[in-house]
Parts: sequence; structure tokens; C-alpha cells
Amino acid sequence: MSFKDAITLLQDDLTKVEEYIKKNYNSDVALIPTISSYLYNGGGKRLRPLLVLITSKLCGYSSHNGSGRHITYSCVVEFIHAATLLHDDVVDESDIRRGNPSVNAKWGNDASVLVGDYLFSRSFSLMAEDNDKRIMAILSDAIKSVAEGEIKQLINKYTLDTTEDVYLDTINRKTAALISACCGIGAILGGVTNDKVDALISFGKNIGIAFQLVDDLLDYTSNEMVLGKPVGNDLVEGKVTLPLIHLYREANEGRKDELREIMNSPEISREQLKRVIYLMKSYGAIDYTMQRARDYIENAKQSIASLKSSSTEQYFNTLISVADYIVERKS
Amino acid sequence: MSFKDAITLLQDDLTKVEEYIKKNYNSDVALIPTISSYLYNGGGKRLRPLLVLITSKLCGYSSHNGSGRHITYSCVVEFIHAATLLHDDVVDESDIRRGNPSVNAKWGNDASVLVGDYLFSRSFSLMAEDNDKRIMAILSDAIKSVAEGEIKQLINKYTLDTTEDVYLDTINRKTAALISACCGIGAILGGVTNDKVDALISFGKNIGIAFQLVDDLLDYTSNEMVLGKPVGNDLVEGKVTLPLIHLYREANEGRKDELREIMNSPEISREQLKRVIYLMKSYGAIDYTMQRARDYIENAKQSIASLKSSSTEQYFNTLISVADYIVERKS
Repeated sequence: MSFKDAITLLQDDLTKVEEYIKKNYNSDVALIPTISSYLYNGGGKRLRPLLVLITSKLCGYSSHNGSGRHITYSCVVEFIHAATLLHDDVVDESDIRRGNPSVNAKWGNDASVLVGDYLFSRSFSLMAEDNDKRIMAILSDAIKSVAEGEIKQLINKYTLDTTEDVYLDTINRKTAALISACCGIGAILGGVTNDKVDALISFGKNIGIAFQLVDDLLDYTSNEMVLGKPVGNDLVEGKVTLPLIHLYREANEGRKDELREIMNSPEISREQLKRVIYLMKSYGAIDYTMQRARDYIENAKQSIASLKSSSTEQYFNTLISVADYIVERKS
Repeated sequence: MSFKDAITLLQDDLTKVEEYIKKNYNSDVALIPTISSYLYNGGGKRLRPLLVLITSKLCGYSSHNGSGRHITYSCVVEFIHAATLLHDDVVDESDIRRGNPSVNAKWGNDASVLVGDYLFSRSFSLMAEDNDKRIMAILSDAIKSVAEGEIKQLINKYTLDTTEDVYLDTINRKTAALISACCGIGAILGGVTNDKVDALISFGKNIGIAFQLVDDLLDYTSNEMVLGKPVGNDLVEGKVTLPLIHLYREANEGRKDELREIMNSPEISREQLKRVIYLMKSYGAIDYTMQRARDYIENAKQSIASLKSSSTEQYFNTLISVADYIVERKS
């Protein structure tokens, strides 16, 4: 089964999620639906809703009683994700996202911050309405982690000797916490035992870390057309990610000096970027990062090995295909 | 009874609120407590916690059982308020708040956005932990209203013919919604009947609107030393508030042209600001705005007239003193 097959299998629910999202960003303040629909029509993988849907079904959640809680929470996690993206773009001063002008480039930082806050508030309303104490605890912890992870990333900007541990803790908070929460929510909706909830939370944490590792890798190895933003953007913004951490750690003193000089340049030239990527390849930093991502995917799969059963094999395989997709994707 | 007496009466609880706030912005990500403590040591009237405390006591909430929910929610509303201030400063590009450099001026927009998100997330955690469905609904609605109000303000920037109705709806959302929620929370904690909850929500809405009216007035009539930020800041930022709306509405065509020219100046000079304030006084815009604020305070008092009883007279009078303070204050 491929990631595309997973999408096809969940297509009906994904369509309901899209409708539910549209309904819930409606506001009489016209700029809110305008920006929200720009955001939602701009693409995105809907990875987080997909994980809520698959894990809930894997855990036996049935929507036949019409409650549609899996749709509600898919919308909640997508709103939280969208809010963090809007705020991220202000933090990173990004002009482009997914190949389109970013919201802050088109409508300004002010609109990005405030529509982000609006989407946060909508996600709370929806959570509060469903009022599941366990899910609320998981989600408020996840939002807290995202903010902490982003701030940690800010503090460590331009710090070439950031350790791998500090980096892993940062991406665990800023990316894996919400992805992990999605899997935990699906499990709770399905009403499975605590050890199964924990297994899926662990699965989510591991694929979440792998997801960010691959993101950070693609920033150097992909191309602008596929990526939808300039290559080497992290280097330009001073974000020190694993490919650079590994390179700097392994480099001799001469190369270390060279890297520091590049990092401190007022503007990083195309040649400097090419040089860094060349060094990353020479020092095995690309392979190392990819291998770490594969390790986390392997851990993720092991976390849920005990959840395999013949009655839900289809959803189990779908979840595995999402895990595989995370390391195979090109953008 | 004066506002100062109100503070004295609630001092023990206010101290507990300060301690609880400090405890809850603690994080192993060092920048978070640094910025949060800078923010909390920078002053502020603690109006929102004060309203939670007074209304809860007026409604018979007793903290003797040790649950301290009034302290928890005082912290929640103050975190929400602080988060919106941090995001506001990014939106308004403010360099100064309460006489001190703003967080964005000192640590950057990125830190302001992210620490704001962190404080939002902490407020949700605390709400989710207490898990009162009615209070969560009130608070998530309030946060939504604040974002909508701020966006509405953004849309109507530099629009001199903004109507009074649009302005009132904007400040109702951006300011009165949260102040109103504080009073509603106190009532719910006290376990009073729905009509008393509604009465206090209405009280909060009315004093909230009056609060913003006076804020918008002080922006023109106070001085920089007292205000802690430059006078006429709203005019410079293109925020069209009631003193300006009234002036523009009442002005003849010649003055309307003059006001449009001033509003569209690339930079507003000291002379232009003086001229606008002179015109506001001549056209009665200052008096008109103050009278509207007084009307709302009168409405507020009428909303809660039926809540007066001999057993809680002290807290009733305290609440009235807060309402009076709102129109009497000089900063």
C-alpha cells in the first residue's frame, strides 16, 4: 500500500474534514475566511488529520453513530497546525510557502498573527465543545511544546556547535508533539486500553521526529520547484539542523573556520550554499541524517507491532504506509 | 470605597494570583520565564484577575475548601490578556508599553509571537485541567472575539468615516469580551442562577466598552509621562477611534479635507497632532466620548442593581468602585 492508496481509502472522511474546516473558519469579519481559504487552498499534505482518521479507525472508532468526533479533531489539529504555520512565517520572515506567497507577504505580519490567533481560538472552542479531558490535556501540552520548541530553535540560531541532543529535543517539541498528539487522539477516540494509546503516541513521536529530519534534509537536497521555497533556506535563516550539526561536528578545524565564516556572512551567496552542500555530502551528513530518519521510522513501526490484527489489517497497513511515505517523500 | 481600597481588600488573593502566575510561566526554555517575568514586573492594573476575584466573592464563592479556582482563573485570564498584548505589540509595531521598551523592541517580533503562543497554551492547560464546560465556552468565545476585534480594527485602519456602530462592535470584541468573560467566570464559580450570571456578563461588557472608550480618549488627552507611551499614538498608527470618528462626522467639508490630509501624511507632525486635538475639543469630541463612557458605566451599574444584598455589600461596593475607577483613571 502506498501513501496515495492511504489517501484514497480515507477520501470520504478527508472530504468531510475539508467541509468541516471551511464551516469553522467562517466569520463575519471578512478577512478571516479570505485568508483561511487562501491557506487551505494552498495545498498541504493534511498529514495530521490523516493520522487522526487512520488511528481512530485502527482502534475501532466507528462514525456510524453519527457523532463524527474524528472529523472534529481532524479539524482541530489542522487549525492548530495552520496557526503555528502562520506564526512561523512571521517569526522566519518567510515570503513564500508551498510555492505561493505566504500570508504575511500578501496581507502583512499583523494579519498573520491575528488570523493565527483566530484559528487557535476556533480549535479551543471545538475542543471545549467535545470536552474530553484527556484529549484536551494532550492537545494543550502539544501546543505548549510547539511554542517551546520554536523558542528553543530561536535561541539556538546561528549556533553551529548545537548538539544533536538539543536539536532532537527541539524538533521533538516543535514538530513531533502535535503529530504524536494526533495519534493519541485517534487511539482515545477508539477507546482502546492505555498501553495501546501509549503505543500510538510513541509511534507518532517517532514519525514526527523523522518527518522533521526529512524536512531539514530536503531543505538542502531538494530543488526550489519541488520544495515550493528556496533551497538552503535554513542556512540563510541561521537554523542549525542535523545535516549542518553533523558536518560541523565531523569537520576539521579548517572546515570549521570556513563554516563559521559562511554562517556569519551578512548574505549567503549561491557559491557558499553550494560549498556547504558539497561539504555535507563529503562528510556523510546527508546520509547520516537520512539514516537517523530511517531509524526513527523503524522505532515507530516497532512501537505498534502489537497492534496488528486481522480485523483492522487495512488500517494498520495504511499507518505503515504513512510512516514509509515520511522518509520517501521528495517535498 | 476607592479603587485603591478594592485592591487592599483583595490583596491576599492578588498576591496568590501573582505567585500562581509565576509558577505557571516556568519552563526549561529559559527565554520564556525571562520574558514573562519582564512582562509581569512591568506593571499593569491586573483589572481582569481583580474582576474574577470580586465577582466570585460577590456570588458567594468560598475558597475555604482550598480549591482556589478563583486564583486559577485569575491566572488564566491574565495569561490570555498578556498573550494578546504581546501579539498586539507585533501588530502595532509598538516600541514602548507602560513606559518600558516593549518585548518585541527588546527581544524581537519572533519572541513576542512565540511567548504569546506559549502563554495561550498555558491558559488552555489550566482551563482543561479545571474542565468546566461553561467557563471553557465563555473563554474560547472571548479569545475568538479578541482576534476578530483586532482584525476588524486592522481592516478599518485609516478609514475616517468608520461609523460609531462599527467602532463599538470592534471594541466590544477586542476589549469588552474578555472583561465580560472575567465577570461571567466569577459568577459561575459562585454557583449563582443564570440570570445573575447574565447580569454580571452584561456588567462586564458595559465596563469593558467604557474601559476602551477611556483608553482611546486618554490616547489624545493624557501626557507621555502618565500614559507610558506617546500621545496621539492611535492617530499615528491610523487607528480611528471615537474622538476622531465624532470629530470627522461633525466637521464641515473644509475640516474633513484637512483631517483626510493629516491622516494621509507620511508622517504626522507635532503641529498636526496638536491641531487634531484642538479640533476635537472645539467639536466636542472629547466630551462626547467621555459622556459615552459614563453612559456605559451607568448601564453597567444598572445591570447589577438586583445583586445588591446586605450579606455581600462589601463586594458589591468594590465592584462599583472598579466601574467608577474605569472612567476616573488618568492612565
